[in-house]
Amino acid sequence: MPEFLSLLPPDEALTLLLSHLLQTVTDSERIEVSSSLGRVLAEDIIAPHPLPDFQRSTVDGYAVRARDTHGASDSLPAYLKLNGEVPMGDAPEFKVGAGQCSLIHTGGMVPDGADAVVMLEYTGQTGSDEIEVVRAVAEGENVIRVGEDVAQGQVVQTKGSLIRPAEIGGLMALGITEVNVIAKVRVGLISTGDEVVHPGASPRPGQVRDVNSYTLKALVEKAGGIAQLYGIVPDRFEAVKQIAGIALSESDLVIITAGSSASTRDMTADVIRSLGAPGVLVHGVNTRPGKPTILGACDGKPVIGLPGNPVSALVNGYLFVVPVIEKLLGMLPRPKPSVAARLTVNLPSQAGREDWWPVRLTTETPRHRDSKAVGNHASLPDKAEFLAEPIFGKSNLIFTLASADGLLRIHADATGVSAGEVVEVFLL
Amino acid sequence: MPEFLSLLPPDEALTLLLSHLLQTVTDSERIEVSSSLGRVLAEDIIAPHPLPDFQRSTVDGYAVRARDTHGASDSLPAYLKLNGEVPMGDAPEFKVGAGQCSLIHTGGMVPDGADAVVMLEYTGQTGSDEIEVVRAVAEGENVIRVGEDVAQGQVVQTKGSLIRPAEIGGLMALGITEVNVIAKVRVGLISTGDEVVHPGASPRPGQVRDVNSYTLKALVEKAGGIAQLYGIVPDRFEAVKQIAGIALSESDLVIITAGSSASTRDMTADVIRSLGAPGVLVHGVNTRPGKPTILGACDGKPVIGLPGNPVSALVNGYLFVVPVIEKLLGMLPRPKPSVAARLTVNLPSQAGREDWWPVRLTTETPRHRDSKAVGNHASLPDKAEFLAEPIFGKSNLIFTLASADGLLRIHADATGVSAGEVVEVFLL
Repeated sequence: MPEFLSLLPPDEALTLLLSHLLQTVTDSERIEVSSSLGRVLAEDIIAPHPLPDFQRSTVDGYAVRARDTHGASDSLPAYLKLNGEVPMGDAPEFKVGAGQCSLIHTGGMVPDGADAVVMLEYTGQTGSDEIEVVRAVAEGENVIRVGEDVAQGQVVQTKGSLIRPAEIGGLMALGITEVNVIAKVRVGLISTGDEVVHPGASPRPGQVRDVNSYTLKALVEKAGGIAQLYGIVPDRFEAVKQIAGIALSESDLVIITAGSSASTRDMTADVIRSLGAPGVLVHGVNTRPGKPTILGACDGKPVIGLPGNPVSALVNGYLFVVPVIEKLLGMLPRPKPSVAARLTVNLPSQAGREDWWPVRLTTETPRHRDSKAVGNHASLPDKAEFLAEPIFGKSNLIFTLASADGLLRIHADATGVSAGEVVEVFLL
Repeated sequence: MPEFLSLLPPDEALTLLLSHLLQTVTDSERIEVSSSLGRVLAEDIIAPHPLPDFQRSTVDGYAVRARDTHGASDSLPAYLKLNGEVPMGDAPEFKVGAGQCSLIHTGGMVPDGADAVVMLEYTGQTGSDEIEVVRAVAEGENVIRVGEDVAQGQVVQTKGSLIRPAEIGGLMALGITEVNVIAKVRVGLISTGDEVVHPGASPRPGQVRDVNSYTLKALVEKAGGIAQLYGIVPDRFEAVKQIAGIALSESDLVIITAGSSASTRDMTADVIRSLGAPGVLVHGVNTRPGKPTILGACDGKPVIGLPGNPVSALVNGYLFVVPVIEKLLGMLPRPKPSVAARLTVNLPSQAGREDWWPVRLTTETPRHRDSKAVGNHASLPDKAEFLAEPIFGKSNLIFTLASADGLLRIHADATGVSAGEVVEVFLL
């Protein structure tokens, strides 16, 4: 049986790992909303009061009783008595009685008695305190009632929501200036390999600098984690086991990047088995790059073994580390950002294996596109405006990713993708 | 002439504004590469040495002279003398002579004399120091030469590149642990409106809390800027002009969010005109939300007037503020992240106006999809797996954006989009 048939597809491998995580991070911290960008809500947000909390106008115009405008037209205007101007930021000191109206601005508080607003363009001033209205309004027209947007007690944001600029705005609109967020996921990073040295060192012949600790640290921070580097550990089982044990006790997730030789990869699996039950869940994933990836769970905590090759480690970091962090944060599922692009060359692929190709995106001149004919998709003129050009590198050097805009996935059931096909590129 | 014909489309409006910016941010700072995520390179990165800097193996196997394997096959193996094992992380102390081979691991240094590596699976050990080889290798096979990935002196990353995890890895691989990055863009934020109060305050009837200062601060920080809040200024020309003048002298970009009434919007334009030449470039953009957006340049610095409505302000922040910050940072153009989704309802649109709708994305069960028939796009099975459900809110409250996953664009030349159409949703 060819080896790839015994390897799990990446999606199944991830699902298996996630099913073994005993708990999400439950620690939370209380922080200023104005500094909460990118954090995850640890509580449901309940509206302490309705929004709006006063009846307001959505237009510039005149607040009226709707029935006073019934039948009004250009040829037969309704004439109303102007009783004042609603001040911005304050409650008007007057009411609107029968046959009366008040000048009001967008966002102004609709005076008691009025139940609609006539837009300025359908009115004219015909005397010092007389307004003519040439269009009828219905009750409630151009007015937002108290609580029409948000009712008091309504859950407006749920636990597990990512805090983006709009969430910050929503909290501020309700006067909530502090919020409980999930503590950052603590991720322990271990590099192994007798040939690996610190990036600041001058490698001797045969040595390479530690890249994975730093690419993964950045990935972890981007995903909402906080990385702790446990250094570079020599390729000896006892040494790796000891450091990994310490890392596991201090972290919510441990990542071990293996040396590049087969024996060190097997050692990573042995270490994971030694750290707790059930140990190794997935030994090898049916993807390229990243076949040697190991997924494990030790007493409910995830431990991931990544290949030593920097491209494999980072691509598999996107595939496995990021979703694990999001799961640990209790985050609601979110779509992965991508763009559609037209592939520039044929890409072969082995059936049964999922391939991830680093690609550069360039902009296609629209007039050269044959897709221009698809004119009925008025909403999609940008579709496949991009060209996806795969980046080839003999040794899968990290620079193939550093010059890439995204990763193109070739699904396991495909034997390749042809030049000109529209593909989905996940943005890095 | 209907008003919208005199308004600029958003793309043209942005291009006009960008053409008036006299200079990008030129200040740079030197920081640790390990803390440089999300910053922008202020220098070209030149490889100080080749990569790899020693001849290395890409597989586990035996380093050989290729000509010693010529003609080797299962029926007629080549027999070579094993002269040692290449240690990981060190230079071998032996050479490979004619008829000799050395055990080598992935990433190991190929000994002098050898010019190829035979993979382990095409070899067998036939004596204590004898290896049989059943497959011929060509010169250079499974070996990366010095500088094959990166030549010494090669520009590997260019000024203006965004530093992502992969860029950090590339720098570390070259031993570069500090780097010059562009200083963050200083953005001055001013809220105006007699009705606007601090989020921590309890608004009286008619008042609303300041939301825009905080949504825009978060947006600015996400885009690579640093926001300075100049507070809430009452709707008086002299007051706004004075604060805006101070903000302009201390910032690279100034944003004024107007009160909601027509008169205060016009005042923002007057203030921008008073701050420097040419002043207002675009007074009104043909988009919804955001028609009252004002774009200006004062002596080479951008000043943007946004509508007071929090949704309009934030959507137009994505459309105009983010690209201006990226331009000021000297960033190379990048694709906007999006996903394809199937619209759940008909959305009308006024021809000639570009509409942006907040939408929620939900996952469609693939077996119900009629797009399943498009099976030849093996790379795109996820296409339109999402459903895009527009979020309607009478007053365009910020919560319509807080519950949205993205923004759907309806182009100016469309009169609407039909339910079931595939649309592009830009992720928030």
